[in-house]
Amino acid sequence: MTLPSYLEGAWRAGAGAGTPVADAVTGELVTRVSSEGLDLAAAVAYARRTGLAALGELTFPQRAAALKAAALALQERKQELYDLSARAGATRKDAAVDVDGGIGTALVYASLARKGLPDHTLIVEDDPIPLGKGGTFAGRHVLTTPRGISLQINAYNFPVWGMLEKLAPALLAGLPTIVKPATPTAYIAAHAVRVIADALPPGAIQLVAGGVPGLLDLLGGQDHIGFTGSAATAARLRADPAVTRRSARFNAEADSLNCSVLGPDAVPGEPEFDLFADALVTEMTVKAGQKCTAIRRAFVPAHLIDAVSEAVEARLARVVVGAPGAEGVTMGALVGLAQRDDVRAAVTRLSAAGSIVWGDPDKVEVTGADAERGAFLSPLLLRADDVDRPEPHEVEAFGPVSTLMPYRDPAELTELIARGEGSLAGSVVSADRDFVRRVVLGAAACHGRLLVLDRDSAAESTGHGTPMPQLVHGGPGRAGGGQEEGGLRAVHAHLQRTALQGGPEILDSIVNRDMQSGEQR
Amino acid sequence: MTLPSYLEGAWRAGAGAGTPVADAVTGELVTRVSSEGLDLAAAVAYARRTGLAALGELTFPQRAAALKAAALALQERKQELYDLSARAGATRKDAAVDVDGGIGTALVYASLARKGLPDHTLIVEDDPIPLGKGGTFAGRHVLTTPRGISLQINAYNFPVWGMLEKLAPALLAGLPTIVKPATPTAYIAAHAVRVIADALPPGAIQLVAGGVPGLLDLLGGQDHIGFTGSAATAARLRADPAVTRRSARFNAEADSLNCSVLGPDAVPGEPEFDLFADALVTEMTVKAGQKCTAIRRAFVPAHLIDAVSEAVEARLARVVVGAPGAEGVTMGALVGLAQRDDVRAAVTRLSAAGSIVWGDPDKVEVTGADAERGAFLSPLLLRADDVDRPEPHEVEAFGPVSTLMPYRDPAELTELIARGEGSLAGSVVSADRDFVRRVVLGAAACHGRLLVLDRDSAAESTGHGTPMPQLVHGGPGRAGGGQEEGGLRAVHAHLQRTALQGGPEILDSIVNRDMQSGEQR
Repeated sequence: MTLPSYLEGAWRAGAGAGTPVADAVTGELVTRVSSEGLDLAAAVAYARRTGLAALGELTFPQRAAALKAAALALQERKQELYDLSARAGATRKDAAVDVDGGIGTALVYASLARKGLPDHTLIVEDDPIPLGKGGTFAGRHVLTTPRGISLQINAYNFPVWGMLEKLAPALLAGLPTIVKPATPTAYIAAHAVRVIADALPPGAIQLVAGGVPGLLDLLGGQDHIGFTGSAATAARLRADPAVTRRSARFNAEADSLNCSVLGPDAVPGEPEFDLFADALVTEMTVKAGQKCTAIRRAFVPAHLIDAVSEAVEARLARVVVGAPGAEGVTMGALVGLAQRDDVRAAVTRLSAAGSIVWGDPDKVEVTGADAERGAFLSPLLLRADDVDRPEPHEVEAFGPVSTLMPYRDPAELTELIARGEGSLAGSVVSADRDFVRRVVLGAAACHGRLLVLDRDSAAESTGHGTPMPQLVHGGPGRAGGGQEEGGLRAVHAHLQRTALQGGPEILDSIVNRDMQSGEQR
Repeated sequence: MTLPSYLEGAWRAGAGAGTPVADAVTGELVTRVSSEGLDLAAAVAYARRTGLAALGELTFPQRAAALKAAALALQERKQELYDLSARAGATRKDAAVDVDGGIGTALVYASLARKGLPDHTLIVEDDPIPLGKGGTFAGRHVLTTPRGISLQINAYNFPVWGMLEKLAPALLAGLPTIVKPATPTAYIAAHAVRVIADALPPGAIQLVAGGVPGLLDLLGGQDHIGFTGSAATAARLRADPAVTRRSARFNAEADSLNCSVLGPDAVPGEPEFDLFADALVTEMTVKAGQKCTAIRRAFVPAHLIDAVSEAVEARLARVVVGAPGAEGVTMGALVGLAQRDDVRAAVTRLSAAGSIVWGDPDKVEVTGADAERGAFLSPLLLRADDVDRPEPHEVEAFGPVSTLMPYRDPAELTELIARGEGSLAGSVVSADRDFVRRVVLGAAACHGRLLVLDRDSAAESTGHGTPMPQLVHGGPGRAGGGQEEGGLRAVHAHLQRTALQGGPEILDSIVNRDMQSGEQR
């Protein structure tokens, strides 16, 4: 009944009672998670020895082929992942965001690598930069694989996508991965690893279900730590001597108070008015709002706030909460009862700054399940007319919760946006180009991604909440200060950049694979 | 007698007795350093308000012009800086490395920005990336100026260069700078600020002579902290909540156990043999070895170690230690007596792993000064035949100290190099291309910069110890895990990257300056 970990090429169960993981819908026990007694030091050594060597044998296109094979293996068996995801409260649509989103991300990475990386194990960034007038001395930058590993600590909300978007660039960069999924959905991540492990070189992936005590003590300057989750855990990890003293690379992607802005032009009747209301409800209800990119702060022109509230309420009234797969259900459960308690507590804090205009945090009508045994929660729309209150800009309710706030003009709006202290994603819904330009340029430095939504692009828009593998994901400040994805940038970020200096010919002979014998690649 | 700080556009002296700074050569009091009672919060506010706004008014080429003007102002008055540098123990040649090196770096940055950055305040990284088949939705990345400041904490060894190489990219990026020079040479940095302040926009630079208590409490996710100095201080800064909790950008460049490697081909009589010995002695003696890039570990083929030792000793015998400017002096003093104590203590530790083959840590013949009042120290060459001892790979003596070590073959050599746990700079001196290639590729991931030195490039080579503004400076692990310089990369690193999504036309109208009115730039 204990979820095994995948270490040194074999599945091994931890000892002890472990942490019970309940079905989000029924409350039944799904599994127990424990890493007690597992030899994590041996896992790190295996990654450093076997994984690093196996990946080092492959050029970038060969690694891309392995990544593609892994993604296609998942594609074949994604129904199994949908079924498991339902136990974590995810509707089929929610699961597709995670599973298909993850597969798609891996495939995009495989494609970008095949097209954009050399048939080699290192990347040459530039032509020789002359450093002398006689042409006998120059510099050039290369990116090579560190002698290290990638530890990936993931959030519970996207067990598949979150794993694959970190695995893909690490694998392409030649770094073996040890993934530590979040406990509530570790069984989904573990199943995905079961499906892909054989497609990858030995040691390229290991998975620890449960805690990783002492693991960071083994990491240093050649290693990479990728984290997605709460700002508090990000801060704790970043304060570890592995990062502060030994300079392990650390990338954090943390929850943030993302905003969406309605333009003053988007009055009722204009397409952008409906696009805004639709997007807000989508972000509130997909994954039951358990998305680090979800809209927490909805800024609307003061004179439109009543109309927007009504429009959003009308849409929320059509949301059917219940068991994934049950007739008519459009929103599933939170991942667990503890998380529901957290959201309720956050809503209590938010309520001090305004009022709940839709939904009841303590009561929800549920289809196909028991409202209390399952981690169900009503969508909750709040309204805070006093925008100076700190709570809406600081308190994140990681569930189906958003707060409407009025703004008077773009100058005030820009300051309000900045009070979020850094976000992953923002959106501006407007057809007024001057307004859009002003808000985007005023808010860009606070965001990793900004979406402009209007009638012209709506049909093809990928939406406020969806990170794209081609674009950077991650934001400044509260959002963790990191960057993931962004196409090949993420691969580069896993490699060590080194400036080489010397005669142009010797530099050529170092970086040019054709001039090297096999063993020296 | 207290060195004033430059805050809010005026020079203000701190209160109290302060920290006395002695002349490195005579031991006389040069100045006292104190920031007691200075309003650092007001300085931060001034930077955020006045500095950020003033820089935001300027496009990249305009900022480049200001930077160039500052560099030319220094050029006019560099004799004043040479004179002050002599009091810190620097010979004219040492001072030129710092002063002319700093001016040159600023001028290169001004030139790179003028040629490589747009006449705009933001950088567009890419063409629209299609995100839909219909062409109505795309993404693109922009780099914009954060709403923050740059705090630059510098080392004592390069008060001018160290300041300018950080100021240049921050200024170009539009970030106002607060520089905190190291106390022992703060009077040199302060003088440089006196010279350049009027060339820069108001608030673009401030200087705090002395401690900066509470300053990090004011920094967050929009701010940048650049640090050069010891690994211990780097770790302490990186563990500050400004970094761990609020995700201030942090870049560290720390001392490291840099290596130089002699190839097995470079037997006595070959030019590379002499190049290696010359470079080692240069790195030991320039700035009295107080360079974060200096060669601490000199790896030579086991069968050549006696010959190398003799050759280096012969060169060291010609070094004349003494007062900068005194007849025949080729090596000056350490910056202070406390630093000499530190170096002696480190040499004691290193001696446990081998023996001193040249020089006496407690005795040196000094020209034109008193050997004990001034911070003079003999160049010290150590030899450690047992390469498995930890000390040579871990203990840095930040002075004219290097350790010779033998290696058997490239495989062992690569492992020995890696035991430094990350370095700023390394060099390979050899005309054997296979050897060079193997060592460079084996050691690249442990280095920020690797120099190949041979007879063909020696005449134009900029040398092991010299960071170039065009090339990245900084290394993994022990070296701090950061990157400075590297041409425009350093400017990019101060900007926030944001992925914009929307219709291609609206994206164009946001990023294209011609489509914007003045106030929205």
